[in-house]
Amino acid sequence: MRFHYTGIRIRDLDRSIEFYTQVMGMKLIHRSKIPSVGGEIAVLNSPGSEQVLELNFYEDSSKYNTPYVVGEGLDHLGFQVEDLEKTLSKFSKIGIEPFVEVDSGGLGKYVYVKDPDGIWLEIYQMDE
Amino acid sequence: MRFHYTGIRIRDLDRSIEFYTQVMGMKLIHRSKIPSVGGEIAVLNSPGSEQVLELNFYEDSSKYNTPYVVGEGLDHLGFQVEDLEKTLSKFSKIGIEPFVEVDSGGLGKYVYVKDPDGIWLEIYQMDE
Repeated sequence: MRFHYTGIRIRDLDRSIEFYTQVMGMKLIHRSKIPSVGGEIAVLNSPGSEQVLELNFYEDSSKYNTPYVVGEGLDHLGFQVEDLEKTLSKFSKIGIEPFVEVDSGGLGKYVYVKDPDGIWLEIYQMDE
Repeated sequence: MRFHYTGIRIRDLDRSIEFYTQVMGMKLIHRSKIPSVGGEIAVLNSPGSEQVLELNFYEDSSKYNTPYVVGEGLDHLGFQVEDLEKTLSKFSKIGIEPFVEVDSGGLGKYVYVKDPDGIWLEIYQMDE
């Protein structure tokens, strides 16, 4: 048994694909409709990473299109960067203001931003 | 920028570590308290997989210990198995009853189970 991917639910597939590719630097590797659940999925990963992110969209008519609350089950998704200052500068240019967290106690530097649905993303740089 | 891990929030760290190691076959690779947020984390992966799962626990006194609702942000976590029937037989022996989903349209066979906090896990076997 192998943990293989994380599926988040999003409310606008095009919007989320644009965010995760343009802002978060991921690559879209697959997109398809799943008629049996009335939905559509998109599968992404980051260059050089096996970690897979699946975006799950449910149409209005789908029984899985329940009211959306982000909730606490998903605490956050973690994205590692080489140079946090450079990333923050890029975010600033496109109007993304991060929530800067306190130091983790020597593990590295990190900030939080929200994805288009309000899901927290941790962007972190490990200490050398 | 590299998607590196998924952090879920859980309400009982020992209980979740036991579930993800004993039932889901993962390996605990790190556990530590994070005093700055009033919490404790555990990091796990599956043998042969780079995909990382982080369990986030917040103490009663932590400002992050907000009321817990699983929510829809995390749709599900995906676990791949070689032999779904064998996994179901193992689950049955320990009293875990899966929710069997309809066929995905030729992509494989899959079922869903809930983790101790109510987070949906997809267990799937790809077609040969």
